[in-house]
Amino acid sequence: MNRHYTLTISCPDRVGIIAAVTDFIAQHGGFIVEASYHTEEEQFFMRQEIRADSLPFDADEFCRRFAPLAGELSMDWKLADSAKNKRLVILVSKQDHCLDDLLHRWRSGELQVDIPCVISNHEDLRSFVEWHRIPFIHVDMQDKAAAFEKIAELFEQHRGDTLVLARFMQILPPGICQRYAGRIINIHHSFLPSFVGAKPYHQAYLRGVKLIGATCHYVTRDLDAGPIIEQDTMRIDHGDTVDDLVRYGRDIEKTVLARGLRYHVEDRVLVCGNKTIVFK
Amino acid sequence: MNRHYTLTISCPDRVGIIAAVTDFIAQHGGFIVEASYHTEEEQFFMRQEIRADSLPFDADEFCRRFAPLAGELSMDWKLADSAKNKRLVILVSKQDHCLDDLLHRWRSGELQVDIPCVISNHEDLRSFVEWHRIPFIHVDMQDKAAAFEKIAELFEQHRGDTLVLARFMQILPPGICQRYAGRIINIHHSFLPSFVGAKPYHQAYLRGVKLIGATCHYVTRDLDAGPIIEQDTMRIDHGDTVDDLVRYGRDIEKTVLARGLRYHVEDRVLVCGNKTIVFK
Amino acid sequence: MNRHYTLTISCPDRVGIIAAVTDFIAQHGGFIVEASYHTEEEQFFMRQEIRADSLPFDADEFCRRFAPLAGELSMDWKLADSAKNKRLVILVSKQDHCLDDLLHRWRSGELQVDIPCVISNHEDLRSFVEWHRIPFIHVDMQDKAAAFEKIAELFEQHRGDTLVLARFMQILPPGICQRYAGRIINIHHSFLPSFVGAKPYHQAYLRGVKLIGATCHYVTRDLDAGPIIEQDTMRIDHGDTVDDLVRYGRDIEKTVLARGLRYHVEDRVLVCGNKTIVFK
Amino acid sequence: MNRHYTLTISCPDRVGIIAAVTDFIAQHGGFIVEASYHTEEEQFFMRQEIRADSLPFDADEFCRRFAPLAGELSMDWKLADSAKNKRLVILVSKQDHCLDDLLHRWRSGELQVDIPCVISNHEDLRSFVEWHRIPFIHVDMQDKAAAFEKIAELFEQHRGDTLVLARFMQILPPGICQRYAGRIINIHHSFLPSFVGAKPYHQAYLRGVKLIGATCHYVTRDLDAGPIIEQDTMRIDHGDTVDDLVRYGRDIEKTVLARGLRYHVEDRVLVCGNKTIVFK
Repeated sequence: MNRHYTLTISCPDRVGIIAAVTDFIAQHGGFIVEASYHTEEEQFFMRQEIRADSLPFDADEFCRRFAPLAGELSMDWKLADSAKNKRLVILVSKQDHCLDDLLHRWRSGELQVDIPCVISNHEDLRSFVEWHRIPFIHVDMQDKAAAFEKIAELFEQHRGDTLVLARFMQILPPGICQRYAGRIINIHHSFLPSFVGAKPYHQAYLRGVKLIGATCHYVTRDLDAGPIIEQDTMRIDHGDTVDDLVRYGRDIEKTVLARGLRYHVEDRVLVCGNKTIVFK
Repeated sequence: MNRHYTLTISCPDRVGIIAAVTDFIAQHGGFIVEASYHTEEEQFFMRQEIRADSLPFDADEFCRRFAPLAGELSMDWKLADSAKNKRLVILVSKQDHCLDDLLHRWRSGELQVDIPCVISNHEDLRSFVEWHRIPFIHVDMQDKAAAFEKIAELFEQHRGDTLVLARFMQILPPGICQRYAGRIINIHHSFLPSFVGAKPYHQAYLRGVKLIGATCHYVTRDLDAGPIIEQDTMRIDHGDTVDDLVRYGRDIEKTVLARGLRYHVEDRVLVCGNKTIVFK
Repeated sequence: MNRHYTLTISCPDRVGIIAAVTDFIAQHGGFIVEASYHTEEEQFFMRQEIRADSLPFDADEFCRRFAPLAGELSMDWKLADSAKNKRLVILVSKQDHCLDDLLHRWRSGELQVDIPCVISNHEDLRSFVEWHRIPFIHVDMQDKAAAFEKIAELFEQHRGDTLVLARFMQILPPGICQRYAGRIINIHHSFLPSFVGAKPYHQAYLRGVKLIGATCHYVTRDLDAGPIIEQDTMRIDHGDTVDDLVRYGRDIEKTVLARGLRYHVEDRVLVCGNKTIVFK
Repeated sequence: MNRHYTLTISCPDRVGIIAAVTDFIAQHGGFIVEASYHTEEEQFFMRQEIRADSLPFDADEFCRRFAPLAGELSMDWKLADSAKNKRLVILVSKQDHCLDDLLHRWRSGELQVDIPCVISNHEDLRSFVEWHRIPFIHVDMQDKAAAFEKIAELFEQHRGDTLVLARFMQILPPGICQRYAGRIINIHHSFLPSFVGAKPYHQAYLRGVKLIGATCHYVTRDLDAGPIIEQDTMRIDHGDTVDDLVRYGRDIEKTVLARGLRYHVEDRVLVCGNKTIVFK
């Protein structure tokens, strides 16, 4: 994979935005690898991948030169450099199917991120994480307020970009949700908005649905109600017990989290109110 | 398709039920084409398809002879004869995608039922229904109580087995729901329990879900909360408008209704509390 | 749906194409509704939907003014006007599930096309087609060469844009395939390249596959080997007979044909060698 | 999960088989947990799960007592005891996504088997396997005949029940395929029968298919042509490179292998000619 810059933009819609931006890129010889657009409620969203070696300057200089146009069009914008890995701090409890999946994608090079540490309220997964030479940090949950302050501190200290709740069985306090808005990703084990909260497979079993699902979403103050990034479902039938649903569900959970996280890491997700635009 | 009898049974679970029933069938030379079992909460459910020509007597005689065993094991049971078509009375409003789909399956012989009439609160679909030589009956909805009494009357008069709400945009009164419990089938245009009630595609759009769905269920007094027979979902993305969801949704609705209805017509659905067992 | 123009372009890839085209559009106040790009083997592909009422001139004038730029960049290009319906001539035999599906989408306004006639080698579907007030033309297949000459004549005479083989059970001669390259669409009842030719469900049954599928593709001289537009699959199991596969398959066939045809009609499909780019 | 016995039977079809078998079970108080039947080409197939603690004797005694009935009905039959884990010997090369997936399912208790060793023609995965405290054995492939003889020896020596090719990049010699017929399971990275042999994702890319797939099958002398146990597909589009297909494909491969292997391990798969019956 060649190095590339990813330019993401959100601004009020009007005629000529694409032309203005692509003109700017073309004037400097920028080679566009991928381009996506979307308009929603008079707001325009845009993502451009540009080959780094086609430009005569680096990312900082790009930003300096682009700033005037961005100002003129009232843009909310960002330039990401594929050479700078995002830093994921992962929170887990005892269940390890999502963690195993993410660490495999990481060590095989499929998921190009840095994982400065894994934090857990249990000791169970220490050996597995440490085999990967990733620091494993145990945080005691007896004093919840202190524990979450500790987690936030560790996140800062490890210069985390994104906090991933890989089946972390604790509810984050509103303060942390707000401080890191758009940077905390959770996997919920139901097809939201069905079966919010605890024991969703049990709820699904009792309601007698014919498919179960999982949802990857940004965490907000409202439990399981943040912007949805990715979802999927699979068929079950009357013969499946709650244990079967839990077992099938693990496969959907890890796939949905991996896909959603990949979109996030590649700057494909733009938040618009309580919804997401995902430029696949 | 050869003629066959379908025996469906529900009774308290204990050792030896399968043996007792299959013994009875084998003693009379009955050839079992398909057999399914399920146990839930100490209740046993069973479905057997038997080739009619392998038995030395007809359905009535089968029932007479089977009754003692059924009594002994406290069975709730039924024998259906594939030579006797179920009679579906279809309710529609203005949207015709489900109706078109059902009538095509009927006229091609795929759905082996009788359709004694189609009832509607609008005149729009008269010509299409009458082209099929099926009576089309318009019922005025100004006086709702009278209208529903009329519908129940028509259902009785046409000796309907099942009332199919093929995107009928009116809520049935509790009295009718109870009178025909397990005999009224609705298609709801969401993946229940999400988005109960009106405008589910609009609700789905606002929530920003990444898949939409449809649900075929038995109608009970509780709106959109009856036993689910069949569901399915399909992927959408941020570029899809509410109109797109409505358009995609039509395809899921007709497929899910057709599948659910087929299971019902072939006596594959057994109700257990507010859930269904579907012997596919 | 507002009137819009759809500009599709294929040209050798280089820096600045998007900028040049979107500049041209922006200079005339053109409001871009949807934009898609793709590069494959140094060829660039592009599709732009522009709101007609945002431009100060009509489609013809757009073409006149755009021609110099198109020439400069060696473009193969086309401008379609959403106000001018495509004209589909449909070929059928005796099976009507795809025809029923297409005509329903047409009469409900979902598929915005004109259908000047339906041609068949059998009389079976006359009444159904004529109920729609669409001319039904029977062509005798005894003399195949003459029959296909007649079909080509009818296609010309009715000013057809696209010839749709909606389960037409005859193989088109190479001459017609070449004359109307990229304008003939077939639905094949397997997941190509598996099970080319006759009786694909029978082949699938014998091989013991666990999913069956359907393929919508452009027709070329090579049987079932033309560029694929759309495909889908569904799960079957050991209990399904060939007749069951045929029955399930009808549902996939009609969905896949409807989707593929819609992409084609909306100028979303660009052919690149023996593959398609589908800008969804 | 309670201990249970799984009785699988194949015999010529006739009236009364189910009655005879379930009678036998009921006479000894056997409690049937799950029962499945299928008839194909006048051969009858049957699977019964019986709760071990409902029977007054053990598996050996069951077999002794059942043998006369089995003989009478010319049965090919087997009784498996859930308390005796199947022994899987896994063959890998360098790619570890399937191995990682299987070992995670194993260590979490989801896949109840023993894994006496993992054999590889490369050293790459030693550390990961050994972290699980499973012996890792490297076999040099320079002399292929000797290498395969060594593999067969190791399989015997470790009392393997099933040989799992978890993306093992070598073709097994016919002798081994025959010796262990119905006991060697492979995951092929295409939706067979499409794209047999090498580089199936490359073949899929060149053909321009709109979905890719994977196939779990028993290995026979005919390359990629053995009885199919499980398959699945996923959607791709024109924007996906061969590398993207390979990446997506890994997710299907591991899911399909895990599902197919689970069916095999739970004695749900019966082979019938070159097809499988899978009692889910």
